[in-house]
Amino acid sequence: MIIYVDEQAEPKQLETLKEWLNGIGVEVHSLKGENGTILGLLGETQNVDVEMIQSLDFVRKVVKVKEPYKSSNRQFHPNDTIIEIGEAKLGGGHFAAIAGPCSVESTEQICGIAKAVKEAGATMLRGGAFKPRTSPYSFQGLRSKGIELLLQAKQITGMSIVSEIMDIASIDVFEHVDVIQIGARNMQNFELLKELGRTDKVILLKRGLANTLKEFLMSAEYIMASGNEKVILCERGIRTFETATRNTLDISAIPMLKKMSHLPVIVDPSHAAGRAELVRPLALAAVAAGADGIMVEVHNDPERALCDGPQSIKPDDFKSLMGEIEKIRSVLF
Amino acid sequence: MIIYVDEQAEPKQLETLKEWLNGIGVEVHSLKGENGTILGLLGETQNVDVEMIQSLDFVRKVVKVKEPYKSSNRQFHPNDTIIEIGEAKLGGGHFAAIAGPCSVESTEQICGIAKAVKEAGATMLRGGAFKPRTSPYSFQGLRSKGIELLLQAKQITGMSIVSEIMDIASIDVFEHVDVIQIGARNMQNFELLKELGRTDKVILLKRGLANTLKEFLMSAEYIMASGNEKVILCERGIRTFETATRNTLDISAIPMLKKMSHLPVIVDPSHAAGRAELVRPLALAAVAAGADGIMVEVHNDPERALCDGPQSIKPDDFKSLMGEIEKIRSVLF
Amino acid sequence: MIIYVDEQAEPKQLETLKEWLNGIGVEVHSLKGENGTILGLLGETQNVDVEMIQSLDFVRKVVKVKEPYKSSNRQFHPNDTIIEIGEAKLGGGHFAAIAGPCSVESTEQICGIAKAVKEAGATMLRGGAFKPRTSPYSFQGLRSKGIELLLQAKQITGMSIVSEIMDIASIDVFEHVDVIQIGARNMQNFELLKELGRTDKVILLKRGLANTLKEFLMSAEYIMASGNEKVILCERGIRTFETATRNTLDISAIPMLKKMSHLPVIVDPSHAAGRAELVRPLALAAVAAGADGIMVEVHNDPERALCDGPQSIKPDDFKSLMGEIEKIRSVLF
Amino acid sequence: MIIYVDEQAEPKQLETLKEWLNGIGVEVHSLKGENGTILGLLGETQNVDVEMIQSLDFVRKVVKVKEPYKSSNRQFHPNDTIIEIGEAKLGGGHFAAIAGPCSVESTEQICGIAKAVKEAGATMLRGGAFKPRTSPYSFQGLRSKGIELLLQAKQITGMSIVSEIMDIASIDVFEHVDVIQIGARNMQNFELLKELGRTDKVILLKRGLANTLKEFLMSAEYIMASGNEKVILCERGIRTFETATRNTLDISAIPMLKKMSHLPVIVDPSHAAGRAELVRPLALAAVAAGADGIMVEVHNDPERALCDGPQSIKPDDFKSLMGEIEKIRSVLF
Repeated sequence: MIIYVDEQAEPKQLETLKEWLNGIGVEVHSLKGENGTILGLLGETQNVDVEMIQSLDFVRKVVKVKEPYKSSNRQFHPNDTIIEIGEAKLGGGHFAAIAGPCSVESTEQICGIAKAVKEAGATMLRGGAFKPRTSPYSFQGLRSKGIELLLQAKQITGMSIVSEIMDIASIDVFEHVDVIQIGARNMQNFELLKELGRTDKVILLKRGLANTLKEFLMSAEYIMASGNEKVILCERGIRTFETATRNTLDISAIPMLKKMSHLPVIVDPSHAAGRAELVRPLALAAVAAGADGIMVEVHNDPERALCDGPQSIKPDDFKSLMGEIEKIRSVLF
Repeated sequence: MIIYVDEQAEPKQLETLKEWLNGIGVEVHSLKGENGTILGLLGETQNVDVEMIQSLDFVRKVVKVKEPYKSSNRQFHPNDTIIEIGEAKLGGGHFAAIAGPCSVESTEQICGIAKAVKEAGATMLRGGAFKPRTSPYSFQGLRSKGIELLLQAKQITGMSIVSEIMDIASIDVFEHVDVIQIGARNMQNFELLKELGRTDKVILLKRGLANTLKEFLMSAEYIMASGNEKVILCERGIRTFETATRNTLDISAIPMLKKMSHLPVIVDPSHAAGRAELVRPLALAAVAAGADGIMVEVHNDPERALCDGPQSIKPDDFKSLMGEIEKIRSVLF
Repeated sequence: MIIYVDEQAEPKQLETLKEWLNGIGVEVHSLKGENGTILGLLGETQNVDVEMIQSLDFVRKVVKVKEPYKSSNRQFHPNDTIIEIGEAKLGGGHFAAIAGPCSVESTEQICGIAKAVKEAGATMLRGGAFKPRTSPYSFQGLRSKGIELLLQAKQITGMSIVSEIMDIASIDVFEHVDVIQIGARNMQNFELLKELGRTDKVILLKRGLANTLKEFLMSAEYIMASGNEKVILCERGIRTFETATRNTLDISAIPMLKKMSHLPVIVDPSHAAGRAELVRPLALAAVAAGADGIMVEVHNDPERALCDGPQSIKPDDFKSLMGEIEKIRSVLF
Repeated sequence: MIIYVDEQAEPKQLETLKEWLNGIGVEVHSLKGENGTILGLLGETQNVDVEMIQSLDFVRKVVKVKEPYKSSNRQFHPNDTIIEIGEAKLGGGHFAAIAGPCSVESTEQICGIAKAVKEAGATMLRGGAFKPRTSPYSFQGLRSKGIELLLQAKQITGMSIVSEIMDIASIDVFEHVDVIQIGARNMQNFELLKELGRTDKVILLKRGLANTLKEFLMSAEYIMASGNEKVILCERGIRTFETATRNTLDISAIPMLKKMSHLPVIVDPSHAAGRAELVRPLALAAVAAGADGIMVEVHNDPERALCDGPQSIKPDDFKSLMGEIEKIRSVLF
């Protein structure tokens, strides 16, 4: 860590600061310049609260050199993490496509879609049972019953399943779920992160709507610090001033996350844009930018399309998308 | 609700849409224009999923006329809600100042600050026991022990206390806490909102970093729909591109929220800016804009200031701030 | 246009509004509902100021149905616009790569890079002569001299050239420049847009850092309304809260703009990210998402790399990127 | 400036960097740590391109210690700048209220409003003659004719006048205008800034919709570096994700700008919110936060209110607002 101290700083102030730093195990080296003094900090710098130092009158800048994330940091784990889920693999050159309906509704619906997306090339089945809804008056999902239906679809198709958890109390319900998803709104629900860190489930962590990549990795760090290193990062769009799309897919997040971390990175083009017609171009862009997988909403029943989400595509569209992804991957990677 | 349909829409498509709407209890009136048709929807329009309708090829626009929040909507409750907490009142012309340290650390610390801020004019004591931290390696608060210390300070000073909850599992610990705070990161932790809606505690709900005012009220709605109408709204800064301040205090949120809702609105200038020197101007601005209260971080021990948060002010600063607030309120309201 | 009027509106108010609307050539149809009245407006609705109507006490919502952009609107021009620049074509299935240095520095530099990028597959040469710099103390470009050097490179290589203009006064200097670029900071410099609309140059219009797609098209509209329809739209990243990258490339803007407009859309991955290592993944993503071209910064002299921009790549990297783009385009389009 | 170099950096790389820095007049001091080396740069550090250094593989961080703005920097000019405009003064404890219509329409209109706002306590008259409009199809202002009408109102009332300029070509038209306004969209129209820096007019510079405070001061710097030090900074709202208000007034910008710079800071509550009902609370908040002035849109003719902007208030509202501002200033300052 580096602290830049004003030229107006009094020697006594500097002395007090150095003593305090020494007291918490930090060694301080000074370098006197024209307009101030540079303090180079070595040792137990993780004990130093940057914001607190920054708040001192005579301090102009504090710069943290070490990244605050460790377990997820590529610097300390140069090789890509490869996560195995049933027969699927993710990361390190392995690509996975997760597909399924927004909400689980009935045995027929989930099993129908499961078969369709499996046939189209999906490696895992997604489906919402516990639904985070902005309004308390909206449908909140089939909850435990929805998980049961997903497990039926798993049994029939052999696909691994992915579903979102909303609170610690329902962890037991997810006992046979292969991948537990943490939604964007819960990315900084730290108690939930810690608890899931104590399980041996694969965790699919979605980026919060207004969270930086650094904060995203710090949330992965919560899970990993509790003992569970099987974390998949999922970019799903951030909130910006633009209103033409529901969110703005941060495509740069893919190469940036892969540079910062060894964890696999997937993209959810359905929620990013909120429009079915954008799923294809965004999914292709994600693959070209190096994503390790995609998660796509697919609905089953063209006759009932009226009741499916605006961001869902049909099984046929998904199948043709999988074909195009295959082609891009074959020429690029 | 109004649906604007394209001129290219086929009569059959329009017919299907109308039938489907009738089926869910919605009456449809058409108005034919040059470039399309306007459908006016009456009846059970809350059953209509706007995004789904919007996704239909032949629909150009869907406009929801009724606001989705009800219990918190001023339209249905024209009078300001006044919340009583011990001897303090908030809303409807009653102003409250909540003050205290970032984290509860020890009996001496919390009781010392409690006396100081009470003497300076604070009506409630705040203190963090369960601390949401971006990093798993940062101090997570004294947790239950911190609540105990707050209760000691309450007993000694008679002040009502405010503290943040982080998950449902610790609700019991908050039995004697007067006001339970839901932090910005948990504003859309819907399970927590529902559970707190089943208690009879006053809830201080902070706006999420990237949440609109409408979403903010929808979260209040979760609490109120579960039966608890004692909700205080707290603006604490939103995330923008500006980096000179930690967050951007959305001062317009005060008059807007008071127009949209009857609930009391307070402001937290300490977290908004992240700099002690901005607490005073932002607190005064909030009062002038019509806030029903402020929540301010105050630290106690000038000698140990090094260890307090960068956004905390000293008891003396808080006292002089309270004097200025009193003056503004006496000339304006 | 649709106006939704409150149930509390007095008949006299409604009558006055209708008369005023009739007076400006607008026909009004009413539809009475439970909680208010829907007014459908037909005729010269472009005369109606939405914000003004919205500000009336008794109006709850105003919805504009027609898009405000006309010349650039795909609805009225279903076919892709194809722009010809020398031997290059852009749009309607034609892809163009524009490459060159951040700033034009010398004959050797610009001619050297020109040959290198031409050999690598670039169809046009870019180079900054007039440089918009945040600081008045930074290098402002070689200005007219820089344009001369670009013209030399054009003569030698036969490549069409692209360079940025900063004010009306220098239009004469751009007489032989093939494509005039309007930078992000000038996207709403309306006087400049109008003046360039009176020329017969191809205009490369960059999206402003905080401008919506609708505003972007309205700026294209300024150029087109003045008579010049040869406009290329360029997405180059928007400003968000994320600081890991300089800007956030809005990849969804590509399919959205192509849906809204018939104009060609290109992407500048160099400025979007501000990091050389991101140029390749972002360029590939742009191509996969359907961009009609890319504009990339390439520097020439590896020994002097220290002095080139952080977002520039070397000719070799550009060549291999062009190979990958070719592959993606061959399998996708 | 401080450069933090990776431990993996090779000695030769470090040596090359140091030599290059020495070559441009920069002295380099090293400090070896565990995980890397800190380089402290002294001397002509303004010659160093931060982004370029940052782009080097072996560099982890570059930190600029000196602020890039000089003439506008409070560090070098501790006293508030006081700007005199006719009989009005702004800054250093002097408060000014600028009021007038959105657009100048006729002699009657502008002279009528001028008298009304003067009587209500305004010290200057504003009025738009050249209007920046998002759409080329919207009214573009009376242009030169509008300036003539403003000058008539000036002659009659003796008030100084403020009006927006849109390009260099019309500078002559502003010969007798007291304060030339640069709109938000032109904040980084550097050629215009430089040209106005060569005049002796007072310049009212509005903050761009998505510009940081640092960029705002750099634009003031463009004017000052060209010789004109009479710059007034105007906060008018920034673009964020929130859609309830047109823009988000950045109230913290007031104390922050006053800390960073000695220039006067005013606030435009009318454009920030885009709603007449928010003008009063935002103006009061601005005053309480320490603004040196406000600029407010006032319309004259209640009967024609339908045609005035949604953000304009009536003369009576303005008068009562001026009374409240006076009260706040009397108790606070």
